[in-house]
Amino acid sequence: MTKRILLVGAGRSSFSLINYLISLLKENNWQLCIGDLDVGFLSEKFGSAENVQVISFDIFNQEQKTKEITKSDLVISMLPAKFHIHVAEVCADHGINMITASYVTDEIKALDEKFKAKGAICVMEMGLDPGLDHMSAMKVLDRIKDKGYKLHAFETFTGGLLAPSTEDNPWQYKFTWNPRNVVLAGQGIVKFIQEGRFKYIPYHKVFRRTEVIHIPGHGYFEGYANRDSLKYVDSYELQDIQTLYRGTLRRPGFCKAWDIFIQLGATDDSFKMERVDEMTHRQFINSFLYFNPHDSVELKLAHYLNIDMESEEMYKLKWLGLFDDELVGLKEGTPAQILEHILKKKWTPRKDEKDMIVMWHKFDFKEGDQAREIQSYMVVMGDNANDTAMAKTVGLPLGIGAKMILNGEFKLSGVQIPTKREIYKPVLKELEAMGFEFNEREIDLMETAKG
Amino acid sequence: MTKRILLVGAGRSSFSLINYLISLLKENNWQLCIGDLDVGFLSEKFGSAENVQVISFDIFNQEQKTKEITKSDLVISMLPAKFHIHVAEVCADHGINMITASYVTDEIKALDEKFKAKGAICVMEMGLDPGLDHMSAMKVLDRIKDKGYKLHAFETFTGGLLAPSTEDNPWQYKFTWNPRNVVLAGQGIVKFIQEGRFKYIPYHKVFRRTEVIHIPGHGYFEGYANRDSLKYVDSYELQDIQTLYRGTLRRPGFCKAWDIFIQLGATDDSFKMERVDEMTHRQFINSFLYFNPHDSVELKLAHYLNIDMESEEMYKLKWLGLFDDELVGLKEGTPAQILEHILKKKWTPRKDEKDMIVMWHKFDFKEGDQAREIQSYMVVMGDNANDTAMAKTVGLPLGIGAKMILNGEFKLSGVQIPTKREIYKPVLKELEAMGFEFNEREIDLMETAKG
Repeated sequence: MTKRILLVGAGRSSFSLINYLISLLKENNWQLCIGDLDVGFLSEKFGSAENVQVISFDIFNQEQKTKEITKSDLVISMLPAKFHIHVAEVCADHGINMITASYVTDEIKALDEKFKAKGAICVMEMGLDPGLDHMSAMKVLDRIKDKGYKLHAFETFTGGLLAPSTEDNPWQYKFTWNPRNVVLAGQGIVKFIQEGRFKYIPYHKVFRRTEVIHIPGHGYFEGYANRDSLKYVDSYELQDIQTLYRGTLRRPGFCKAWDIFIQLGATDDSFKMERVDEMTHRQFINSFLYFNPHDSVELKLAHYLNIDMESEEMYKLKWLGLFDDELVGLKEGTPAQILEHILKKKWTPRKDEKDMIVMWHKFDFKEGDQAREIQSYMVVMGDNANDTAMAKTVGLPLGIGAKMILNGEFKLSGVQIPTKREIYKPVLKELEAMGFEFNEREIDLMETAKG
Repeated sequence: MTKRILLVGAGRSSFSLINYLISLLKENNWQLCIGDLDVGFLSEKFGSAENVQVISFDIFNQEQKTKEITKSDLVISMLPAKFHIHVAEVCADHGINMITASYVTDEIKALDEKFKAKGAICVMEMGLDPGLDHMSAMKVLDRIKDKGYKLHAFETFTGGLLAPSTEDNPWQYKFTWNPRNVVLAGQGIVKFIQEGRFKYIPYHKVFRRTEVIHIPGHGYFEGYANRDSLKYVDSYELQDIQTLYRGTLRRPGFCKAWDIFIQLGATDDSFKMERVDEMTHRQFINSFLYFNPHDSVELKLAHYLNIDMESEEMYKLKWLGLFDDELVGLKEGTPAQILEHILKKKWTPRKDEKDMIVMWHKFDFKEGDQAREIQSYMVVMGDNANDTAMAKTVGLPLGIGAKMILNGEFKLSGVQIPTKREIYKPVLKELEAMGFEFNEREIDLMETAKG
C-alpha cells in the first residue's frame, strides 16, 4: 500500500533529510509531500523528483493543515520548535505518526495519552542535540548498567563548529547554524551536579568556567556548561550519579573572548537601544563603557575588563571590526540583535567553508574497585553548502526514524524520545553503516592519578 | 461639612502618616478610616483616637471595597504597589480623590481621562523616592530654567541607610526597608546619559561602577546607578540635557562587597535551589563555587572572584556568618530568598538602632560662559522604631498632599505626579516648616578644574 510522508518547514538544512527520503520512496512505494511557506528553491531542486510533491504550506491555514496531515501516514516537522504543537494536536486527534528534532515540551507531553489511544507514535528529540546525543550516550550507559558496573560521572559536550580552515580566523568559528541562538547561548542559570554537590553558575560566569577536551586527531576544544543538566537525571535514569555535566564545544580561546560581550552587556535581548540608525560598531561598544573623552574605546574596554591591549581577545575583537567607524546598518534593535548583525558581517561562512560537528561523552564508572573511564566521540565534516555536517546529523536520524515508523519497526506508541533501546539501537546501527560512527577509548583510572 | 479619609494598607511604616492625619482631624472636621487585613496593632494604637475608625479591609472583597471607597472623599493607598489599580478603578469610576507613594503605571495612567471627567485627582509618586526626589529636584530645575541658565547635567541619589552607630558593623548597613527589594536591587539593565552619550550597564557590573559623594557633616557615600534614568528626560522636561543619572546611596565599601553576591549568582530569583532544607550558610555559598575538595570555601571564593583573603570584603562576608555551618532554616527557596533569609539574621535593626535617609542632587549649568554647580541635599534621622526616617519622609509628603486635596488647594485633576509647581511648592514649604529642609551649596566651576 502506498504511504504518504508530509514534511513541513523544509529549509536549506533539510536537504540531507530530503535526499535520504527520496532514495527510499520508490522501493517502498512511498509518496513525499514537502510543504513550506516559501517553495521557490524546493520546487526547483526537488519538484521533478519521482514520487515527490512540493506544496505551499502555511501552518496557520487550519483547513489546509488538517487536510494535508490527515491524508498522511507520517508528519516530519522541521518548523520552528514553537510551532510543533500545532502539528501535534492534529496528529494526536487523528492518530497520525509524527517525528521532530526538537525538545519535548509540556504541551506535547500532554498529548501522550491521545497518541497512545490511537496507536500512533510521536518521536521527539530525534536530531543531533537533542537526538544523537541521547542515543550515543544511552548506548554506553546501558552497557555499563548491564554489566553491573557502578556509574560515577557522565559528561557530554556537543559543538557545531567551522571545519579546520586555512583562513586567518582567530575565533576558529563562524555561524554554521542559527546565529540568534549562538548570541543568546548560555542565558539563564546553569545547574549541574559535581561529586554529589549541586552547582549553579550565573550567565556572567558561564564562559569563564570552561573545561578543556582533547579529541585524538582533532585537537583541543573547550566546553562551557549548558543550562540545566539536572533534568537528565530522570530522562537517563541516573538517580545515583555523582557528576552530571552537559556542555557546548568551541575551539580554545573562544569562550574567554566571547565573555567580553557578556561582561559588556552586549548580548542583552531585553531592551531596545537608542539611536541605532546612526550607530557605528565603535559606538555600540562604547555605549557599554564609562565616559572618558581622553581614552580610546580600545583602552577603556581593556581597562574595564582587565585584559591586555595586546591580548588574543583584543585581536579577536579587532578582527571582527568591532572598533570600526562603520555603521551597524539596523534601524532599531536590542544589544543582542545589533551584535548578531555586526557578527554576521565576518562570521557568515563562505561557500567553500565547511562545518563540523563534534560530540564527546565521558563515562566514569567502577568495575569492583577498579575505576575506569570510557570516552566516546564522533566528528562529522560537512560535504558542501547543502549537505552540511549539521544538516546530515540532524536530518539522517530523523530520516531513519521516519523509515522505521513507516515500516512498523517501533512497537512503541505515544510521545517518545530516543533514550529507549528499541529506538536508539537500530538507528545507531544504520548511521554507523552510513559512516557516522562513535569512536571509543577506554582508560583504567588509577586513584592516585585523579588528584 | 465632614470629610472622610480612607487609608488602606496601613503597615508599621504608616505611623508617621497616621499621626500627622490625626493631628488635623478635629480642626478640619475630618474622619479617618484605617483599613488593613490585620488590624490587631492598629486598633490597639489608634482605635481609641477621636474621629478615627479602624476596620478589617480586604482589597479583594469587591462589595466592601466599593462601599468604603465611595463613601470617602479621599483614598490614601499604602497597599503593595501592584494593588493600587484595584483602588484606582473604583476611584476613577466614582470621582473619588486618591493619593499614593508609588510609581504611576500605564494602567493607572490610562484612568487619567476618567478622573478628569469626574473632576477628581489621583496623585501618584507622593512619597520619598518617588516623591520628595521629584519635588526637591524640580524646585531647583525650575529656578535654573526661570533664570535662563542652560542646564548641562543633573545627578540625583537617594539612600535608606542605618544612622551612624557605635556598633561594629563593617557594612554600615541593615535592612531599614523592604529586605526583598534590597536583595533584588539593580536587576535589569541600567540606562543613563552622560555627556550626550547613551550608556548601558548590565546588572553584573552595576555595583562596580559607583560614584563617591561627600555630604558636609555626614561624610562619604557611594552611589550605584538605578535602572532607567532616561525616562526622567520626559517627566522633568530635560530634552537638551547632556548628563542624567539617578542612583542609590550606600556607605563606602558596601557595593564592592555586595557585588560578591551578584558575581556568585546568589541574588538570582529565577529558580529554586535543591535540598534547601538541609543547606547551611557555607553550603549555600559553596554551591556557586567550583568543586575542589582540597580548598576551603573561603579560599575558593577569594580565588574565584580575585579578592584578597584578608580584604575588607572577606571580613564583611565573615561578619554576616556566610561561611558558618549554621542551617539556613528554610524549606525551599530561590538564591535571592535564601540570601535574604541569611542576611536578616544580622541585618535586622535592633530596637535602639535608627535609620537615616539621604537625598542628594547635583545640577551643573551655565550662566553665560560661567559653569556653575548647585548641590542640594537632605539628611533625615529616624526618631524611634515607629517614626523612622523612612516612615516620616514617605508618610509626611503623602499626608500634606492629602490635606491639600481635601482643602481643595490643587486646581489640577486627573492622574498627576508632583513635578508641577502647584503641587511641589506648598508641600516643600510645609515640610520645611516641619524641619525637612534641603541644604544648598553653590560652586563656581572653572573649566580647567573639570579635567
